Amino acid sequence: MKVVIVGSGNVATVLSSLIEKAGHEIVQVVSRNKDHAVHVASRYNADAALLNAVEFARADIYIIVLNDAALESIEKITALKDKFVVHTAGSVSKDVFKNISSTYGVLYPLQTLSKLTEQIPEIPFLVEGNNKETLHQVIGFARTLSDKVIPVSEAERLHYHIAAVFAGNFTNHMYALAENFCEKEKIDFKNLLPLINEVTLKVNNNSPHDVQTGPAMREDIFTINRHLQALSSHPDIKYLYLKLSESILKFHEKH
Amino acid sequence: MKVVIVGSGNVATVLSSLIEKAGHEIVQVVSRNKDHAVHVASRYNADAALLNAVEFARADIYIIVLNDAALESIEKITALKDKFVVHTAGSVSKDVFKNISSTYGVLYPLQTLSKLTEQIPEIPFLVEGNNKETLHQVIGFARTLSDKVIPVSEAERLHYHIAAVFAGNFTNHMYALAENFCEKEKIDFKNLLPLINEVTLKVNNNSPHDVQTGPAMREDIFTINRHLQALSSHPDIKYLYLKLSESILKFHEKH
Repeated sequence: MKVVIVGSGNVATVLSSLIEKAGHEIVQVVSRNKDHAVHVASRYNADAALLNAVEFARADIYIIVLNDAALESIEKITALKDKFVVHTAGSVSKDVFKNISSTYGVLYPLQTLSKLTEQIPEIPFLVEGNNKETLHQVIGFARTLSDKVIPVSEAERLHYHIAAVFAGNFTNHMYALAENFCEKEKIDFKNLLPLINEVTLKVNNNSPHDVQTGPAMREDIFTINRHLQALSSHPDIKYLYLKLSESILKFHEKH
Repeated sequence: MKVVIVGSGNVATVLSSLIEKAGHEIVQVVSRNKDHAVHVASRYNADAALLNAVEFARADIYIIVLNDAALESIEKITALKDKFVVHTAGSVSKDVFKNISSTYGVLYPLQTLSKLTEQIPEIPFLVEGNNKETLHQVIGFARTLSDKVIPVSEAERLHYHIAAVFAGNFTNHMYALAENFCEKEKIDFKNLLPLINEVTLKVNNNSPHDVQTGPAMREDIFTINRHLQALSSHPDIKYLYLKLSESILKFHEKH
């Protein structure tokens, strides 16, 4: 299929690459920043265009990879009128398109996509369409990109997005805090990689509830107090250490 | 070497298995709970003994895998007198042994060890000895168990332990919260596994600081507010969502 990509950030960059690999033709990359558009488009021999000045190229599908605030005013881009248009956001209604087109939906990649991605990972796509026929069109396109295509309601997509923030963004933040702490204390964060990999391996085969370990899980107040004492010169993470330990204690009392 | 294991919890169970695989002979398993001791000992054809009633078997090394509170009163176990004795805790001084023996140290596995471990993972051992000679003895023993043996000071071990709580226990708790949320909202936690695996893969090759994604990182207040609204019937994780998003915002402003 001929594809127009609107957006040039992390997600647009990774999706463009996946779309090309699937055998589609990226005919145009549109961005609010001309340099970014040119940069992404050049890889695909595609046309580059500025969002505000755009004459859209003819294509079979228009994939809008803009942030949520920009998506909210997408209906002002009248040049999208009556196109087959999808967005890729986790928490925005597909109905942002309802005054533009009669063929619209959502193609949400449930994955963390940064420019530093070494290889394109497995991406489950959560998909929606404004009616049965459009849904089938979105599913058909998504299946060219991934073996894992999951039709969802808007509420389900929102809930997956929230769960993904906990399972992906917040965990990565824990690693970032640990790394920063290691740097400050002059120990080597890399020595924690076997532990990090084991936690992840376990969660692939077990309920994370069942494999929780650590001082809070053991209600080991001795160790928690020692850690809090040692964190007195790191007030930001001391505060989180306390809040997260409380959360573990409470969670395992209840469940 | 002939080994006595004092303890029969998760860590004792996994370490015993590793020690046997390395070719050592477990001659005795000692526990505060006789059934547990018998259960672990039976796998190694070892003697089982109750901690309070113990006549220790003759062995080359005595590995104390008790919780921190029990370690604090280890010197009361006079039968350990003058043995080569190590403990496996992250945050307890090796000097809990100083009134018992002149040959003591620490053998701390920087890993999450639960009974549900499918296969024994790579375990970095952080080691200490009360003097140079003992340190070499501990290193020698640890090297039979792992390729990754790291001599540390007590302060370094404590700092690794704290970093491990963030990188291992708190991340697993994020997964547990996500799983619980998915169950309540009737969506499938398993669909998050590709995301979870990708975050971990990335942190093996990049600084987690550099690969942070998500609404807080993008300062995407639109999405954060939508999530907080959707979490109004989940007050516990709503609170953490807010605190952790604030932490990401603050961390990436500073760094």
